[in-house]
Amino acid sequence: MEQRRRGRQSFVLTGRPTVCAWASVAGKKEGEGPLAREFDEILTDNRVCAPSWEQAETCIQQRALDRLLQKANCEAGDLDLVFSGDLLNQCIASSFALRGLPVPVLGLYGACSTMAEGILLAASAVDGGWANSASVLTSSHFAASERQYRFPLGYGGQRTPTSQWTVTGCGAVLLKREGRGPKAVSATVGEICDKGITDANNMGAAMAWAAYRTIRAHLDDLSEAPEDYDCILTGDLGHLGKAMVEELFSRDGVRLGDRYADCGAMIFDREKQDVHCGGSGAGCSAAVLCAHFLPRLASGSLRRVLFCGTGALLSPVSVQQKQPIPAVCHAVCLEAP
Amino acid sequence: MEQRRRGRQSFVLTGRPTVCAWASVAGKKEGEGPLAREFDEILTDNRVCAPSWEQAETCIQQRALDRLLQKANCEAGDLDLVFSGDLLNQCIASSFALRGLPVPVLGLYGACSTMAEGILLAASAVDGGWANSASVLTSSHFAASERQYRFPLGYGGQRTPTSQWTVTGCGAVLLKREGRGPKAVSATVGEICDKGITDANNMGAAMAWAAYRTIRAHLDDLSEAPEDYDCILTGDLGHLGKAMVEELFSRDGVRLGDRYADCGAMIFDREKQDVHCGGSGAGCSAAVLCAHFLPRLASGSLRRVLFCGTGALLSPVSVQQKQPIPAVCHAVCLEAP
Repeated sequence: MEQRRRGRQSFVLTGRPTVCAWASVAGKKEGEGPLAREFDEILTDNRVCAPSWEQAETCIQQRALDRLLQKANCEAGDLDLVFSGDLLNQCIASSFALRGLPVPVLGLYGACSTMAEGILLAASAVDGGWANSASVLTSSHFAASERQYRFPLGYGGQRTPTSQWTVTGCGAVLLKREGRGPKAVSATVGEICDKGITDANNMGAAMAWAAYRTIRAHLDDLSEAPEDYDCILTGDLGHLGKAMVEELFSRDGVRLGDRYADCGAMIFDREKQDVHCGGSGAGCSAAVLCAHFLPRLASGSLRRVLFCGTGALLSPVSVQQKQPIPAVCHAVCLEAP
Repeated sequence: MEQRRRGRQSFVLTGRPTVCAWASVAGKKEGEGPLAREFDEILTDNRVCAPSWEQAETCIQQRALDRLLQKANCEAGDLDLVFSGDLLNQCIASSFALRGLPVPVLGLYGACSTMAEGILLAASAVDGGWANSASVLTSSHFAASERQYRFPLGYGGQRTPTSQWTVTGCGAVLLKREGRGPKAVSATVGEICDKGITDANNMGAAMAWAAYRTIRAHLDDLSEAPEDYDCILTGDLGHLGKAMVEELFSRDGVRLGDRYADCGAMIFDREKQDVHCGGSGAGCSAAVLCAHFLPRLASGSLRRVLFCGTGALLSPVSVQQKQPIPAVCHAVCLEAP
């Protein structure tokens, strides 16, 4: 029996499974942002011809999966396992996207950390030999999220300065034991943190501590330093949460500097696009990873990236009941081939 | 690299990880049913002193975890990994139960199939060496589910004859690589089936096909027959869904007979307790497995059980939008030590 466990929260993927293919689909607004040229597909209409926002999100997942299969030159029936999740109640975007397909599916709920959670589990399944191929598929949709978590769009609610804009988009990856592409080499599973933040419009603050804790645990468990990474990439803390993570590390005497990036801070143009603290949503880190980072890892222009998915585990009910916002962060180390 | 994959949907757990400990907590009504003497704890008040039903469900999970740790003679900090999930929007029962604890947590959403999904993943993590110990914790609460999926209790809605009663309860298991207890030896991941059932009060019918398909896939992938099992146990199809699975197998010329049982059909007394088609909920199969089946596997009075968690992947929104009910079923083979 191989000992893959490292420290209190981490493990190594000894077989270094490969991210063989990836795909991203982005909404209209995301397609007007700084990463416009990097998405595989940009929607001209976020409704995607569906009769509801929820069904539109399902269509977006299906499109991302189609593109992934196309790029990997395979069919759905070739997938041994799919991990999927989204933000909608009971994860209906995912379940409806995958229904009727000849693929074994395991559903996840990790809020905006779902892509990292999925990659960590898919990489384990492939590395351990339980699956020859495993995919991860996660999405979010601005309009579907707004009406579920906050207000229907027609209400015209005012957004607070700390709020983030839920990304309309989806990311999909395919992992195999061998092949060409970035390698998944280690991972850290996060604890659920609660620092008492109760403002549901300030999720960056709620998640920052979880991100800090998981990055610290990863570095400690694997005896690494921030300098060992070209990029430490958090899921979607946005501008405020990102500044808090920098502050928390600086208290430890660690300057993360330019090697620290955040998907939520990258996906929109802060000056030109009116999104306040940046992007969020399970589709945000998924689409940014697939559009921007995996190609750079594949080409070798980035050598090592620590992808840290962050999730705010609140619900409208928990907020109405005046509960604080629990948060989690899972990390996966990805390396150039 | 060990090849653990078998057939199209299954894999074997070559190291035969052990279910070292288990615990169950049941609600008042469940504690008046046929399994009353087998639960570790029966609530005298389903509110559990919490200010809301949702927070009561969180308390129930915490009680089940406490009992599990007590029985396993360890602390939360000794757990390398916890898989958890429930039926509440954004799985808040689980996230709030585990917040602040020193345990790495991965959130799942598989509706009532979550216990089987969790055991399958926890067994893999332990078998592959990513974790030395892994727990699974899943729950449901009648009152919290009613108001989320159907009507608040105070409304006094009439229940249809095919409806099932969401179980108030929780099950928790601890898996380790070695030790005394039942062994997890193989598993099958389900596809998401959709047979066009749109009646949200007939989830048994929606899930029956998924259960049939996954049991078939398991038997085919591993070259087994129903006779190889002392018990084939579905999650919570209830009386109608159970009869449908029997019918589907009988069309193949297979008589499941007495070796087929269903957690939803077992947990309540059909004559004396007014629950129509039986129990359901992520806590149903979890509590019945932990209260009734794991002790019998441990003592050897059952030698082999195929535990098949079934989940109806609907949401109130998908029902209002007139969508059919996707369903999934995951299976784990458990053997006496």
